[in-house]
Amino acid sequence: MDMPQRKHQQGLVYKESMEMSHILILGGDGYLGWPTAMHFSNLGYDVTVVDNYFRRHACTELDVGMLYPVPSLIERAKLWHSLTGKQIKVVIGDLTDAHVMRSLFDSRIQYSWAQNKRFTGLPETVVHYAEQPSAPYSLINYKYANITLTNNLQVTNNLIFAVRDFSPDTHIIKLGTMGEYGTPNIDIEEGWIEIEHNGRKDNFLFPRQASSLYHTTKIMDTDLMWFGVRMWNLRVTDLMQGPVYGIDTEATAINEKLRTIFNYDEILGTILNRFIVQAVVDYPLTVYGKGGQTRGYLNINDTLQCVHMSELKPARQGELRIFNQITETFSANELAEKVQKVGRSMGYSVQIDHLKNPRKEAEEHYYNPKYQGLVDIGVKPHYLTDGVIEGMFRVVGCFKKNIRRDVIFRGINW
Amino acid sequence: MDMPQRKHQQGLVYKESMEMSHILILGGDGYLGWPTAMHFSNLGYDVTVVDNYFRRHACTELDVGMLYPVPSLIERAKLWHSLTGKQIKVVIGDLTDAHVMRSLFDSRIQYSWAQNKRFTGLPETVVHYAEQPSAPYSLINYKYANITLTNNLQVTNNLIFAVRDFSPDTHIIKLGTMGEYGTPNIDIEEGWIEIEHNGRKDNFLFPRQASSLYHTTKIMDTDLMWFGVRMWNLRVTDLMQGPVYGIDTEATAINEKLRTIFNYDEILGTILNRFIVQAVVDYPLTVYGKGGQTRGYLNINDTLQCVHMSELKPARQGELRIFNQITETFSANELAEKVQKVGRSMGYSVQIDHLKNPRKEAEEHYYNPKYQGLVDIGVKPHYLTDGVIEGMFRVVGCFKKNIRRDVIFRGINW
Repeated sequence: MDMPQRKHQQGLVYKESMEMSHILILGGDGYLGWPTAMHFSNLGYDVTVVDNYFRRHACTELDVGMLYPVPSLIERAKLWHSLTGKQIKVVIGDLTDAHVMRSLFDSRIQYSWAQNKRFTGLPETVVHYAEQPSAPYSLINYKYANITLTNNLQVTNNLIFAVRDFSPDTHIIKLGTMGEYGTPNIDIEEGWIEIEHNGRKDNFLFPRQASSLYHTTKIMDTDLMWFGVRMWNLRVTDLMQGPVYGIDTEATAINEKLRTIFNYDEILGTILNRFIVQAVVDYPLTVYGKGGQTRGYLNINDTLQCVHMSELKPARQGELRIFNQITETFSANELAEKVQKVGRSMGYSVQIDHLKNPRKEAEEHYYNPKYQGLVDIGVKPHYLTDGVIEGMFRVVGCFKKNIRRDVIFRGINW
Repeated sequence: MDMPQRKHQQGLVYKESMEMSHILILGGDGYLGWPTAMHFSNLGYDVTVVDNYFRRHACTELDVGMLYPVPSLIERAKLWHSLTGKQIKVVIGDLTDAHVMRSLFDSRIQYSWAQNKRFTGLPETVVHYAEQPSAPYSLINYKYANITLTNNLQVTNNLIFAVRDFSPDTHIIKLGTMGEYGTPNIDIEEGWIEIEHNGRKDNFLFPRQASSLYHTTKIMDTDLMWFGVRMWNLRVTDLMQGPVYGIDTEATAINEKLRTIFNYDEILGTILNRFIVQAVVDYPLTVYGKGGQTRGYLNINDTLQCVHMSELKPARQGELRIFNQITETFSANELAEKVQKVGRSMGYSVQIDHLKNPRKEAEEHYYNPKYQGLVDIGVKPHYLTDGVIEGMFRVVGCFKKNIRRDVIFRGINW
């Protein structure tokens, strides 16, 4: 593999092996974090994951259930080690605390679990997933709005300052979201736009205006990252991701206990995952309003591919590189119809319900995002075929007895 | 006076008098907060001020000095009452705490001082100054960056949720900053721009990209306000203010002890105020780099006028109304030369020093902001004449013995 060899600016710390690249995954216990950790570990990278169990605690507090029980992050890392011989070092800590963040770079880190507790060294790459990721969560009430705002911005701010202070050459891969753009009446470019006005021109971030507080915090993240890039020449890739679907990745074939956290409720479950669970327990699919809300979607395996390709071809110093990380677009109606079609072919009845929209959003709108950049650096998209949906139905069907109908919908509105 | 009479949606609370409008000033102890409070009190409004003494504590912690001692907010309110018979109710509290913010609307408020401690009622208008306002402060190190980020965003977030939950008809007047726009290569419109792209059009917030972390938090404030306006039909006026200069306002003629907090250091002092102090103690004026940095400026008396005119003609429900709140533009060199000219005519020697720029900013750039909106609603600008500068020299000269040369410049760089 063609691993980028970049010099570090701090002589003090060193890597355990000059052959392996070190990747630090913030939010390594989450839906995307854990599969990403296994993916890179499998490829021979040194991997460190950090998490404060935010999602698990939220699941408990909000009583939303999970499709199946998931071992703790330490238990999963130990299992991974026993099955593959590879080490994923684990730090349980809250990254809103600047001291925890900085310990990951200044060698004061305390591993909660590691086979070899010596400091791995500065990371070549940080993948930043350590955010509260749910729009409805952010709008339950003012308390959850504040948690979302402070969690997401403090972690991001601590990250850019730690990288600036200790490891300015580290490549930050940040999960953004297509939701930052909203649904403008013009084509959505990949992050940037040239504006001509009164005969003069300049380049700007593509306009962003989100329709949830969570998505608004992601706009703010972009503001912070762009500030760090301009002021301190940080190297940042921002992956503007659409809703992700899927369960299994290559690594989960090794052992089912390695499967990622899977939520199916309105708060923490993403739309396609949730629709399949609803179909399995004969809960009518909950389309909001007219169902013309169109978004870009991608398979969880493509998230891994996108992050990996971004890591292999990092942003330059002083570059905020932005990719629209989606593989295809669907309206809510189209997704519901796909699930209905496949579900019915498998013997599920699958009804579709059009609820009064609990959100304030356009139910019919223009939507034309560009998404060429990731393909250009080598990503081979997986599309949402009937086969993919059928595969998800089969896994979800195995856990039918765990599904709680009472937590699927509660109608958080804003 | 033509006072807007707006209905409140919560029957529980009521105003003490139907003749007076109630204005709530967040950050009422600050450089602009206290003069604003006196201005509205003088005009017959019910005024409540809230502050946690953030600036005073910062002055102590950072050892930056003040031109003269300033009585506590309570002492000033008592003095104001004894001199004018008018009441400015005082709440000492931290608005990052949602419960403090919400108490201002749900009648649980505890006044730290008031002649009449009965709840005044919902405010028709909130003026939001309760932010950490300094670019260098925000970039001393990661700790001050975090304080700036969390203070400014939590207060703003708590405010929009409290208004949504208790008083959706309240008009929020928010201090923004011209620094949000940065120095783009196109004309700066008042907040908004229509973008035509691939044959389609839409309206967006004018692009923002600031050159300090503080200014970046103000961009984020705008994101929050715009979210609240779109989702909940809040009524918001955003005053994109340039650096303010000046000391005395109409109300300080009543008694010198009513003068506003005046800082003259690099962190909390704004450029013109600081230059005059430097000139008085024969400290060469500190122009950064080439000195071509051009910004829009305004007199403290015009801030009061702008806020007052905005209050009289409030934004509509569901409107984020944006004004560029400046009266004229100058480069750093032009400001230094003006101070030098007037200072020399008064017998001060006044040298100008071009320091290596401690900041990352363009020292020569295009700058063409529009600022017509406030004039259109009735503001009569005060310009920066030699007479105005001379008046400032006279006041500062009276306090020459208090000025600490050692705190004027410390070279915080980013």
